[in-house]
Formats: sequence, structure tokens, C-alpha cells
Amino acid sequence: MKHTGFSALGRRTAAPPIAWLMKMTLDHPNLISLAAGFTDNETLPVKETRALFDRILGSARTGQSALQYGTTAGEAELRTRTVRRLQAQDGSAPGAGPATEYSPERLLVTNGSQQMLYILTEALCDPGDLVLLEDPTYFVYLGIAQSHGLRCRGIRMTPEGLDVAHLEQVLTRLQQEGDLSRVKLLYLVSYHQNPTGITTSLERKRAALDVLRHFERAAGHPIYLLEDAAYRELQAGNDPVPVSALTLKGGAERVLYTSTFSKPFATGARVGFGLLPEAVFKIAVRIKANHDFGTASLLQQLLLAALRSGTYDRHLAVLRKRYACKADVMLGALRKHFPPPVRWIEPGGGLYVWTQLPPRLKTGVTSRVFQAALAHEVLYVPGELCYADDPTRRKPTHEMRLSFGGAPLAEIRQGIARLGAVLAELC
Amino acid sequence: MKHTGFSALGRRTAAPPIAWLMKMTLDHPNLISLAAGFTDNETLPVKETRALFDRILGSARTGQSALQYGTTAGEAELRTRTVRRLQAQDGSAPGAGPATEYSPERLLVTNGSQQMLYILTEALCDPGDLVLLEDPTYFVYLGIAQSHGLRCRGIRMTPEGLDVAHLEQVLTRLQQEGDLSRVKLLYLVSYHQNPTGITTSLERKRAALDVLRHFERAAGHPIYLLEDAAYRELQAGNDPVPVSALTLKGGAERVLYTSTFSKPFATGARVGFGLLPEAVFKIAVRIKANHDFGTASLLQQLLLAALRSGTYDRHLAVLRKRYACKADVMLGALRKHFPPPVRWIEPGGGLYVWTQLPPRLKTGVTSRVFQAALAHEVLYVPGELCYADDPTRRKPTHEMRLSFGGAPLAEIRQGIARLGAVLAELC
Repeated sequence: MKHTGFSALGRRTAAPPIAWLMKMTLDHPNLISLAAGFTDNETLPVKETRALFDRILGSARTGQSALQYGTTAGEAELRTRTVRRLQAQDGSAPGAGPATEYSPERLLVTNGSQQMLYILTEALCDPGDLVLLEDPTYFVYLGIAQSHGLRCRGIRMTPEGLDVAHLEQVLTRLQQEGDLSRVKLLYLVSYHQNPTGITTSLERKRAALDVLRHFERAAGHPIYLLEDAAYRELQAGNDPVPVSALTLKGGAERVLYTSTFSKPFATGARVGFGLLPEAVFKIAVRIKANHDFGTASLLQQLLLAALRSGTYDRHLAVLRKRYACKADVMLGALRKHFPPPVRWIEPGGGLYVWTQLPPRLKTGVTSRVFQAALAHEVLYVPGELCYADDPTRRKPTHEMRLSFGGAPLAEIRQGIARLGAVLAELC
Repeated sequence: MKHTGFSALGRRTAAPPIAWLMKMTLDHPNLISLAAGFTDNETLPVKETRALFDRILGSARTGQSALQYGTTAGEAELRTRTVRRLQAQDGSAPGAGPATEYSPERLLVTNGSQQMLYILTEALCDPGDLVLLEDPTYFVYLGIAQSHGLRCRGIRMTPEGLDVAHLEQVLTRLQQEGDLSRVKLLYLVSYHQNPTGITTSLERKRAALDVLRHFERAAGHPIYLLEDAAYRELQAGNDPVPVSALTLKGGAERVLYTSTFSKPFATGARVGFGLLPEAVFKIAVRIKANHDFGTASLLQQLLLAALRSGTYDRHLAVLRKRYACKADVMLGALRKHFPPPVRWIEPGGGLYVWTQLPPRLKTGVTSRVFQAALAHEVLYVPGELCYADDPTRRKPTHEMRLSFGGAPLAEIRQGIARLGAVLAELC
């Protein structure tokens, strides 16, 4: 055989870091994992889900509907409720007037928001196209970009979110290089970002959308703002988070809003969604038909019942408190155990604490820090995995993503203590 | 804007016939649909699923596991049980000896088998590549092929399945045209095929695999046999169906075996799988990680509990009887109401009866037959939708796929009576 027979995509698609981290966990059964983006196990709504299924499957009518095929776009009432919920979060009450952007007709239900990100990338990007993303960003999105042969440009982050001046610089440079026509989207994890925990303010989102709109004239096609709001509902305190970019002028035409019910409710029941401009929705639903012609009705009916009964919101309140507590415990342990030159960002929500070591201390998988941590049975995500392959800047190599999502409280304390001891020795 | 900004895939992906058929059903609420591939509503295991969830979610341990993320490849015990089941169906008892092809390590769980078909096509096929498929074939696979810019060649069907002599002719011709290096796979719906109901014999599968192996030397890369066994468990009688192509010499290296638990259990709980050669598995699981990093644990735990408790097999026995009865009712109605020049294939299982009209009687959506059927409130799938765009032959236009899966018995009788009246008038 001269060739493997795989497609270009098949050959490009790399093993995801997530698989490797999983293997580490299996190989070290006593490992404390502060790496996985797992959600809190103890608060998973087991009883609640049992009660909901008991009701759904307690009648032939709703039971059969939950066990039968549905439409590709998703269950009608779930789509409507999801849009109304989003509209309420964005501050415009239902019935407040014509707001075609909040239409269930443009909402597509997917297998978690991950599938939505995949489908949108497929719909918009050819190999060699450019995507702009936060530097650092969600590493599974980097896997999608890499497998599709996309070029990436990282946009710097500040404590208030995306550095819009840098976005403008990058686009200006791409224009000068004649590459603007290949720029398809800006991927922005706008709430309690994975991995930094940073929330991008509405003003930043407005400025970013304006910049994209400015450059799209020269690009010759829309440059979309892909707003990944997966962590929106997971804020730690009660302070309201910014409204979405959908509320901005032109948002309905240029914002691809994606989010999920999985992380706030149950990650074992994967239901995500996208609210999309009409033209993009039309293509995305066709691609979804080829993927699987619709997310499992059983999961959609479960989420619908959870939303309708108030179970979802009651659970969310519990979860927010739980994560706020876990974040506090992790931050307290960091203060206690990490040596002074190490810095971190206190997140307002989400599941992660982004930690910066002195630049000479590398954190990658072959580094002394990582190997010493592993020897002490604690795992983190090396920061460099969260940076795109962007040839225009050097990849930072001295950071770590710490997750307080999955580990129990005692393990968070112990894991940070062990990591702190490793760092104190190496600092 | 000069361009839409969509990718080549985005621009190519057409609206699926399934969406259009769905719209017809919504527009005509009194329509009897013999078109949809829905499964029988009355026998859906509503009570059984309730009992299974009651048990799964009745303990914190199993409940949390069902509501948490899992691994990308799928739940370990489900993978093992699925492989053992397949091994038993293929006639080799577990523990009978080394049979590396039946290894859970090579089994990937997906969102129905549709997602497996999508991922395999992504992994293997570049735009312009060639796929061989039965003529006619499963129309949603045609959607995948079309969206990926693939060229298709239809291989004729006989009552015993694939016409292997024609397969050889087609490959010889492609070799002469210098196109052999673009041929990636033969897609074969091997059991109770959608749409014809034909089962391809083991001898035919053996001969087909031999032909592929012969030509792959000249192709310079593997040419896979993609065996879609979605309807394998849905046989009408008790006669055993042929074993899978995995049992053939070289099957472990060249057969991509896909199947599903959705149709035999509940289409609202989408769990399918693929048993793949090692090299293909490796790439497929990476692509799956980018799609959604794993099928919902909740659905996997449900199917696992159904298999483990015997619920799955008990339900399957009920379902087989039910479909055998529905098939009989449809065949009886066809004999009674369809005029003599119309012929059909009596299926040994599955959900479909393939019907051939006299060639002058077109069945497409603009045809007199289709329009008259619609006027009489009955819907079928025009046969031409099941034929690939293959420039080397003319597409037949005088057939229809009739499904007895979704419609209740009375509607099957009435629908066939109405269609029969339409055909009697036009014949």
C-alpha cells in the first residue's frame, strides 16, 4: 500500500489532549485530577432526573414522544423555551416587541454545544481559512480548527476580556498580507472563559463586533462572532453577567450564539444549542441532518421537563453555590500553598483557575513541574495546550489550568497543597 | 458582500429529502405517511425504560455515572457487551479463541449509526473521491456523500443482494479511467436493506470483499467494505440471517461494521456503534472527540441496563413479531389493492417494501402519481431519491419506498388502498 487511504481531515486530526489526560488518570488511579473539565459529581441531579423520567415515561403519550425520532432542528417546545430563556437573560421580556433574532425558528438543538461548534466550523471554514480566537482558548475548539486545516490567530486577553485593539492590529496585518478574505470568524468564550475564567464585557463585545463589521467589507463576506456562552449560567455570585452579543446592533446577523444545558444540569445528558442568523441556521440544520438527523428525543424531553418544572433553575441555584464554594476552597488553598511569584486570576464563575508561574518555570508535559506534580499524584492542564498554533507569536509555556469542577473539596485542598510543595521547591 | 462566506461543504450540503417529507406531513395533518422511517409507536418500550431509569437513577453511584461525562469511545461495559453480542451473532462464542477483530478496544459508540457513517466518511474521503453503493441505497448516506463532494457509483442489486459481477465491472472501468486511486469504500446496507428490503448473502459479501481486495493493490490504499447492519436484528421470521462480513478472511482489516441499538429499542435514545480496523478506529475516535467527545452517558447507561437485564432482547422479540405483522398487513393490502403491473419485493425484515411501477409511470414529487397520492392524503418516498447521482447510468424514476414502520395497522391498510386506487386509475 502506498497510502493509508485516509482523507486530509483524517490525516490531520490529532489525538486530543483530553484523551491523553484521561489515560494519565487511568494509569494513576490515586491521581488527584485538577485537569478534567468534569462537573461536580455530588450535586448531579440524580433524584431529580429520576422524578422527571418517572413523569415523562409515566404516560404513553409523552413517553412515546420521548422514545421516537423527532425533527432535526429539535423539539418545538424546547426550542421555544430556550429562546425565551435567552431573551429574558438578555433583558428583553418576551412579547416586548418584534425581536426576530430571538426566534425558535433559528434555534438548533445539538449534542452539547461542542457539536454546534463543529457544525458551524464545517459550515463556514475551508482548509487554509483563518479563525481568530482568544489567546488562550478552549482547547477542544483548537482540535476542531486543527482537524479542518484552519490557520489560527490568537487575540490577547486582558482582565476585562478580549483585547480589541489587538484584534484590530491582527486584522489590519491580515489585510496587508492579503489574507483577509480567508478570515471567517472570531471564536469568543465570553463568560467565565475556559481556561482563564475571564468574562468579556458587553462594551468589549460591541467593540469587537464593530471591528469585525469594519473589516468584512474588505473581506468580501461576513466575519462572524461565534459567542460560546457555555459557562454563562455558572456564575459564582449573584452579580449579573453581561448580556450576550445578540443584543448588539447587527448581532442578529453576525453573532453565532452557542450554549449548553449540559454543564449547568447534567453532563451525561448532552443537550446544547445555537441561535443563528437565518442563512447560517439553514446550512447548519442540513449538516446536522447528515450528522445524526436530530439530538436524542429522550434527552431533549428531559431538559424540557427540567425547564418546565423549575427543576433546572432550582438545580442551577444549588450548583452555583457549590461551585462558588469549590472556587473559594481552591483560591484559599492557592493563597496558602503557592509560593509568591505564582499568580492567578480569581474567576467570577465557571470551573477554572488560570495560574501563571514565573516565565522560566515551564509547565508542559515534559517539564520538571509537570513530572514532579505527576510524581506527587496531581494532574493539571499545561497552559500551552490552550494556545493555538499561531506563527506570529511565541506560545507561552509557564501557565496551568486548574479545574475545581470535578474534584471533591478534600482533593482540591490536597491537590493544591501538593502542587504548592512542588512549586515551592522549584521556584 | 461578494460571497456568502460558507465553506465548500456548507455550500454543497443540500436540504435532505427527510426535511421535505417532514414538511409535507406538517402541511397535511391528515396525511397517512408511508414515507417516514419512523419506528412503531405503540410498541416503544415506555414502561421498560421507566423501570430501567428507576434502577439506574435509584442509586447515587450508577446515577452519577449516568449523569457525568464519560470517555469518548464509550462506556467500557457497553462496548464489551456489544462486541460479545456481535460475536455471538456471528457464530463464534466468546472465549472460543483469539479473535482480535471482536475487541471492545475497536468499538466506538456513536449517536446512532448515522454519526458513525458520517465520521467514517470524514475520515476516509476527500472531495472528488469515489464511493460505491447499492443502487438504490439509504438516502441519508447520499446526503453525506453529496455534502463531502464525493462521486458515487451505483452497484446493481439482485434479489440475493449486491451484483458482484457489476461491482467488478465498475471497478475495472474506474481502473481504465485512472480513477481507482480515488475509490475509498463500498457502502453496503447488508441486512433487510433500506430501501429494497434485500439481504446480501454471506457468499456475496465474501465475493465483494475479494473484489475490493483485488483492486486495492492497484488503488494503492485500502478499499473498505462499510457494512451498515442497522436492520440486522429486525428480521421478520426466525430464520437466521447471514453472519457479518467481519467473519470473512481479511474482514478484521477491511470491514467497517456499523449498527445501532436505536431502531431495535427506541429511536429516541440514539446509541449506535462501529467495530473498526485498528487504524480506522484510531482516527474515528479522534474525530468523535471533536464532534462531541462522547455519546451521552445517560443513553449509554440505558442501553447497557437494557442489554444486561434482558429487557432489550425481550423487547426485540415483541418488535420482530410486530413488524412481521405490519409487513404482512402491508403485503396483503398490496395484493388486494395494487393493479397487476405493479411489483414489489417481499422483505424478510426491516421496515420497507420496495415497489416497482411500469417504467412509464413516474413516481417523483412532480409526477402525476405523487400528486394524486398527495391529493388522497398518502405519502411515500419516491424511489429516485434512493439513487445516487451516478453519471454512468440513468436514474430509475418509477419506484417507491413504502414503510410499514411508523404507521398504525389501520393506516397501512387505508394508505395502500388509497395508493392502489391512484395506481389503478393511472396504470
